[in-house]
Amino acid sequence: MAKISPLRSRIARPWRTGTVSTMAADAQRSIDLNADVGEGFGRWELGDDEALLTQVSSANIACGFHAGDPRRLLEVCRIAVANGVAIGAQVSYRDLAGFGRRFIDVEPADLTADVLYQIGALDGLARSVGGSVSYVKPHGALYNTVVHHEDQAAAVIVAVAAYDRELAVLGLSGSGPSRTELAVQAERAGLRFVREAFADRAYTAEGTLVSRRLPGAVLTDPAAVAAQALSIATTGTVRSIDGTAVEIDAESLCLHGDSPGAADLAVHLRAILTGTGMPVASFLPPAAATNRSAADSPGR
Amino acid sequence: MAKISPLRSRIARPWRTGTVSTMAADAQRSIDLNADVGEGFGRWELGDDEALLTQVSSANIACGFHAGDPRRLLEVCRIAVANGVAIGAQVSYRDLAGFGRRFIDVEPADLTADVLYQIGALDGLARSVGGSVSYVKPHGALYNTVVHHEDQAAAVIVAVAAYDRELAVLGLSGSGPSRTELAVQAERAGLRFVREAFADRAYTAEGTLVSRRLPGAVLTDPAAVAAQALSIATTGTVRSIDGTAVEIDAESLCLHGDSPGAADLAVHLRAILTGTGMPVASFLPPAAATNRSAADSPGR
Amino acid sequence: MAKISPLRSRIARPWRTGTVSTMAADAQRSIDLNADVGEGFGRWELGDDEALLTQVSSANIACGFHAGDPRRLLEVCRIAVANGVAIGAQVSYRDLAGFGRRFIDVEPADLTADVLYQIGALDGLARSVGGSVSYVKPHGALYNTVVHHEDQAAAVIVAVAAYDRELAVLGLSGSGPSRTELAVQAERAGLRFVREAFADRAYTAEGTLVSRRLPGAVLTDPAAVAAQALSIATTGTVRSIDGTAVEIDAESLCLHGDSPGAADLAVHLRAILTGTGMPVASFLPPAAATNRSAADSPGR
Amino acid sequence: MAKISPLRSRIARPWRTGTVSTMAADAQRSIDLNADVGEGFGRWELGDDEALLTQVSSANIACGFHAGDPRRLLEVCRIAVANGVAIGAQVSYRDLAGFGRRFIDVEPADLTADVLYQIGALDGLARSVGGSVSYVKPHGALYNTVVHHEDQAAAVIVAVAAYDRELAVLGLSGSGPSRTELAVQAERAGLRFVREAFADRAYTAEGTLVSRRLPGAVLTDPAAVAAQALSIATTGTVRSIDGTAVEIDAESLCLHGDSPGAADLAVHLRAILTGTGMPVASFLPPAAATNRSAADSPGR
Repeated sequence: MAKISPLRSRIARPWRTGTVSTMAADAQRSIDLNADVGEGFGRWELGDDEALLTQVSSANIACGFHAGDPRRLLEVCRIAVANGVAIGAQVSYRDLAGFGRRFIDVEPADLTADVLYQIGALDGLARSVGGSVSYVKPHGALYNTVVHHEDQAAAVIVAVAAYDRELAVLGLSGSGPSRTELAVQAERAGLRFVREAFADRAYTAEGTLVSRRLPGAVLTDPAAVAAQALSIATTGTVRSIDGTAVEIDAESLCLHGDSPGAADLAVHLRAILTGTGMPVASFLPPAAATNRSAADSPGR
Repeated sequence: MAKISPLRSRIARPWRTGTVSTMAADAQRSIDLNADVGEGFGRWELGDDEALLTQVSSANIACGFHAGDPRRLLEVCRIAVANGVAIGAQVSYRDLAGFGRRFIDVEPADLTADVLYQIGALDGLARSVGGSVSYVKPHGALYNTVVHHEDQAAAVIVAVAAYDRELAVLGLSGSGPSRTELAVQAERAGLRFVREAFADRAYTAEGTLVSRRLPGAVLTDPAAVAAQALSIATTGTVRSIDGTAVEIDAESLCLHGDSPGAADLAVHLRAILTGTGMPVASFLPPAAATNRSAADSPGR
Repeated sequence: MAKISPLRSRIARPWRTGTVSTMAADAQRSIDLNADVGEGFGRWELGDDEALLTQVSSANIACGFHAGDPRRLLEVCRIAVANGVAIGAQVSYRDLAGFGRRFIDVEPADLTADVLYQIGALDGLARSVGGSVSYVKPHGALYNTVVHHEDQAAAVIVAVAAYDRELAVLGLSGSGPSRTELAVQAERAGLRFVREAFADRAYTAEGTLVSRRLPGAVLTDPAAVAAQALSIATTGTVRSIDGTAVEIDAESLCLHGDSPGAADLAVHLRAILTGTGMPVASFLPPAAATNRSAADSPGR
Repeated sequence: MAKISPLRSRIARPWRTGTVSTMAADAQRSIDLNADVGEGFGRWELGDDEALLTQVSSANIACGFHAGDPRRLLEVCRIAVANGVAIGAQVSYRDLAGFGRRFIDVEPADLTADVLYQIGALDGLARSVGGSVSYVKPHGALYNTVVHHEDQAAAVIVAVAAYDRELAVLGLSGSGPSRTELAVQAERAGLRFVREAFADRAYTAEGTLVSRRLPGAVLTDPAAVAAQALSIATTGTVRSIDGTAVEIDAESLCLHGDSPGAADLAVHLRAILTGTGMPVASFLPPAAATNRSAADSPGR
């Protein structure tokens, strides 16, 4: 495949000089809430994008490979820009029929090009309404695969770095032995890796997610979800499914946008977090989240 | 749909101040050769992209909606950049099964978003290898439809203008009563419209293309094709199918890249044109054709 | 294209010897209710198939080209068989992104093969659970196009006749000058054409549907819908939007399954029709609707 | 998922009473040649279907999921019927972009429905031109996966058995420890499993295929290919890559139809095999290969 190189202009960004530990310190003063949006397709709706976009600070917007027709994506970008929500490219395997939830043994060179194609497509839509893609989050089976699959993780990172080294990469939190391949590859390429945790998923004592096949894997009680969110955001720990406290170092909390009460839960969560002195804010510095494109285009 | 606005940085470009007649004057000193490339898909090949890219000055690169998987498109972009060939986004209806050759009665708001998505996707790939999209050419049935369909022509132009007002639009030549809707809408939006003619298609006395359903519609004799190309490029006229001379004002000549001898014909045509003192060169100013992205990204 | 011939075994069916007027007479003793089902796709749901399948007598099941993944279609076939609901192949243009609602200028030979492919695919699924396709109904833009487009109407009919001349064709009611091309072609090919009317759409004085772009085109008041259904079923007339009575000769009433209260409306309608001595029953003879496949497979 | 049951009529077929060893005995009197056809898509061609269909006895016809638009498939079915070639459904993962060559971790219930859909679609096309599907062969990554993946192998077999228990299943030869999951599941379900070997692939001493990543994996010399074909067909053995003789029990030889000289190689192979007293003939009994549909439809 082609030798590829970064493509967008570079601007001095003081916040980038911070180390990861500084990031973690930042994370204690505010917390990012992210959710998947734009996941309908043509006639089919999924989730209440408009309501979610009033609560979250980061929107993982589908890019057309697992969901998201261009017209819907354009509209979602417009709402995200209007609400000051950071836009992320939720890149996926090419699999509308499987909603990107099935592992595909795609060659790394294909995956890199597929990811580049998706980022560019969404960024074009976002820029046409005054926004821009500021981070990339793999979706579904790709999300799970890049936790451990070195070649596919590297393929995603090559694409992100080739598109723009200022883009952040959002993925599963994990440290020490459970540090993910995506995080390893991102940091090796000089990209910022943002760790996320789940307010509505049970954790094992090792700090990994309890498999969805096991009972208790998903928290459905809003109070329990809020408590876990608060615990992660304020103490960096979570009560595991067997009762021990485990460290979960996360800068962002992921909400599942397609469950019935998702928007209500988001309102509740945001209120509780804010009320505890932990405001919800993008993990990006204020300017970058909403008007990076303006920074890139001084002449406008 | 969202209110959309231009998105890339604006740089003073003296050549843009020229009027259309100046463009026509320019066109008499050189001629652009364009061809469709990147039109395979996955396992399926079509045409000899690598050979064509050594001869043409403009490459209409598929964007994935009628043809073109991302890996192939990335490779084609790389070759185009290496050869100094201008990159155009060959946007299409979403129709892999029909290769974009079937009219689809798509709503304008959908078409605008589909075109934006395609331009962005190709531009992302192009930029990752040091190039960028510099013009847009509708493909197949969309090409024919925007000649006369006001709503679809406007939908395409809204997308191009929203993406970048510096992008040129390439389409069918036509003046006076046969001026195309695409040209009308492009100029109304302040976009440069580049007229193309066909070296291998017969023209009527009115200056329109002879329908493919009629005998003699397609020229297959290389000498005849070369003669017509030369006539268009040097005199701005062509001998119509009934023997009269008609004016064809064209800045670019389109070669059909998927016919068997396409690459050989391109070599032949380029040699003849150059030999007659009519060098083959992009319709874009020298810098814009190959390193607009560099101009946009001074810090690299 | 290939010369194609009918393909399934022929069984003497006395009801087939009836003339069209006999059919109309039959229609006065019972009325068919049909609705679209199976129109989700993968992750995306649409309508309450399970509830609708307890009320309708005919199920227009999507075939994968505008909606309907195979697993869902298999399940819908199983429920239809369990409920004794006749299975129709709801064939469409190939257009998931547009839900089959956009006209595509497809060549007749392609359309014939596309329709054959869809009927066969659904019939295979239906037969694996003990049912079979007993009629074909074009969907969306194809439904509207075959009202007047001779070549596409003929292409659909060629496919149906080649698959099985016992299949009925369901389409828009219309007589005299408003008789549809699909009806003309179906009867020319010796296929039974079944006329349907709409309980929830306003009619013009000429007996055609009021365009959806005009106010009052769609009836939303359940009482008005029920009244129109009853009027069509029992008197063969309907009150037009300008107040005149127009004849609507219909053997089947179409319910729109994807509107919010669709299932409730179906319950209501069925109760009212039954209560008036107009039972809801398939337009097929009793045996054919549910166990034609058994008739074809005596050895089972 | 639905409980599914066999669907086509059952006819006494004496040849079906034979045991597997009888089959092997049959295989020594003739050999089947199979090749993939119908693998273009829309504008894209692949291989010379028409030439191959004059040489092979079995055609693995694509079903639209990895390749094959309906119009092309209909035409290929027509040619197969005209040439007396047995029609097989070459079922695949849903993956046009990857040509079905990438493993997809699809759920068994989805895979069963996908396979049913594909068999039905192809059978409908075949029946409309007087043929019918008589066997099923998984394609590409699915072919390789069902060698060892119990759930996916079972999912394929459930679909085949539900469609018609008379269908044969064609897959990789292997006995003892290298007997494939597909063979195990097929025989457990009472389906005939037909073993195939490759004339142009090198074998290991264990009787498995040498990985394509190793040198010498693919034989390109026509003489070597013919010699291996002859050896398999007449002696049931093959010279492994390290020189030892290994048993390869095969009733069918697979030719790769998309290599440049495929059609010429087929002519050559057929001539050599026939010349050695080993006629090329379908693994199906004479009647079943070409007019099973006639048997099913006595009234035609």
